[in-house]
Amino acid sequence: MDEVIADINAKHLNVYNRDFDEQLTLDDLRSGRIADIHPHRAPEILAYLRDPLFFRDLEVIQDSQEVISKLNDKYEVFITTAAMEFPSCMMAKYEWLKEHFSFLNEMNFVFCGDKSIVSADFLIDDNASHFRRFCGRGILYTAPHNWNVTGYERVNSWRDAEAYFLK
Amino acid sequence: MDEVIADINAKHLNVYNRDFDEQLTLDDLRSGRIADIHPHRAPEILAYLRDPLFFRDLEVIQDSQEVISKLNDKYEVFITTAAMEFPSCMMAKYEWLKEHFSFLNEMNFVFCGDKSIVSADFLIDDNASHFRRFCGRGILYTAPHNWNVTGYERVNSWRDAEAYFLK
Repeated sequence: MDEVIADINAKHLNVYNRDFDEQLTLDDLRSGRIADIHPHRAPEILAYLRDPLFFRDLEVIQDSQEVISKLNDKYEVFITTAAMEFPSCMMAKYEWLKEHFSFLNEMNFVFCGDKSIVSADFLIDDNASHFRRFCGRGILYTAPHNWNVTGYERVNSWRDAEAYFLK
Repeated sequence: MDEVIADINAKHLNVYNRDFDEQLTLDDLRSGRIADIHPHRAPEILAYLRDPLFFRDLEVIQDSQEVISKLNDKYEVFITTAAMEFPSCMMAKYEWLKEHFSFLNEMNFVFCGDKSIVSADFLIDDNASHFRRFCGRGILYTAPHNWNVTGYERVNSWRDAEAYFLK
């Protein structure tokens, strides 16, 4: 979900910049997460993510709804999200999916931690660590934190993913 | 979780019998769920399960903690629970697991719907429908509703499971 279909960076930067009078941008996140850039503020920066409602109003990543809807006509699509670091947000994530991806069956939602438990042919994820023990093919979805990660197939956008899976 | 490590039937029968002045027992559930036995009361019977706190104080199934702790020394144990029918209960289920199975890593918790997404060698479950597309070996954990289900290996207790996996 996060950084693949749900734009967590936009909101996290927004509330951080507002509360700490900063002007961090997406480009700054190429050198690390906000909490890596300002480790002395890590408790406050991570506290945003523990708010049960933080994930409820994230913007949808561009083109993800349209492309996943098309994928869903041809493939069996599951949403797998790492939710065990901030479990209080599970309900907000569920409601967000039902609002923005209402064409998906909620029986295909997976809230987990270690994604090695997932059995699938493909996993589109921004976090390459999930690919290490994944039984299928990992497709890295470009995000600021993974711009210099190599060794995996990569899509830079949902239009890229559409071309990869449907053309 | 339910009927395998968390004793949902005991509480569900208890609140139902209290509120409707009945004396249903576990044996009665061999002919169906409470809502199947009294379909005219199905809305009220299912409403209990939508209470976000219903799952928080379930009793632990006998010997499950001891045996799963032993299994966890030899195997990589994940808890996979069908949570998408009653998503409001996910946080209670998470907290219950952290309370009663604190020796397990929460990164190994999986809240899902369709368990065909699970990649594992074994799945211990009371619901045989989860075995149909499961890639590993399904082990049916005996519960009132599955007493007459055939075609699968079965354990009647966690002592049975201990013998199956550790002896």
